[in-house]
Amino acid sequence: MTETESIDRYFQAMADPYRRGFVERLSKGPASVKELAAPANVQLPAVLKHLRVLEDGGIVVSEKVGRVRTYRMRPDAFKAINNWVEQRQRDMNAAFDRLATAMAEVPEEKDH
Amino acid sequence: MTETESIDRYFQAMADPYRRGFVERLSKGPASVKELAAPANVQLPAVLKHLRVLEDGGIVVSEKVGRVRTYRMRPDAFKAINNWVEQRQRDMNAAFDRLATAMAEVPEEKDH
Repeated sequence: MTETESIDRYFQAMADPYRRGFVERLSKGPASVKELAAPANVQLPAVLKHLRVLEDGGIVVSEKVGRVRTYRMRPDAFKAINNWVEQRQRDMNAAFDRLATAMAEVPEEKDH
Repeated sequence: MTETESIDRYFQAMADPYRRGFVERLSKGPASVKELAAPANVQLPAVLKHLRVLEDGGIVVSEKVGRVRTYRMRPDAFKAINNWVEQRQRDMNAAFDRLATAMAEVPEEKDH
């Protein structure tokens, strides 16, 4: 999977309020499928599908012990997005600096 | 529009490689529709649709002077996403600290 595809999946995973709800919950600590489903007001198959999207997006990992599958955040869940956004902000700052420099170099109009 | 809907739109806007390409380009400075469309390998109507999604998502703004419409980044384009991610990272750090404290409080096993 290329970096572009990986960022695609990441943003797609995040572009859903239920999935972001699971991320908000899991950021506070691991939880079982049952615990995640309880407040979600969605049927279990839909919950499992959302969790699979988050797992494919590299945001969460899961582990099954006995009959209980527990989800937790990946410690580096936000690394790719942070890197991408930081690069854009560096570019925006550089563009702003160039503009400021260009404006400073415009000669002031002289009175005659 | 609620904050949730606003973050939905934001992530949806970002979950497309063409739209992220436009954001990458615009982070380096304003550009006309023509300049944005040139390297994009997409038909103009599709470009305009993508740009509208970015504008609705609060990421870019546009201005029409004569027959030329120019797009630029909103200075606060990444604010909402940064706030959301920062809150999740705070929660993850707090959860990690609680775990570390709990582990430190487990009494060591004594030899008999």
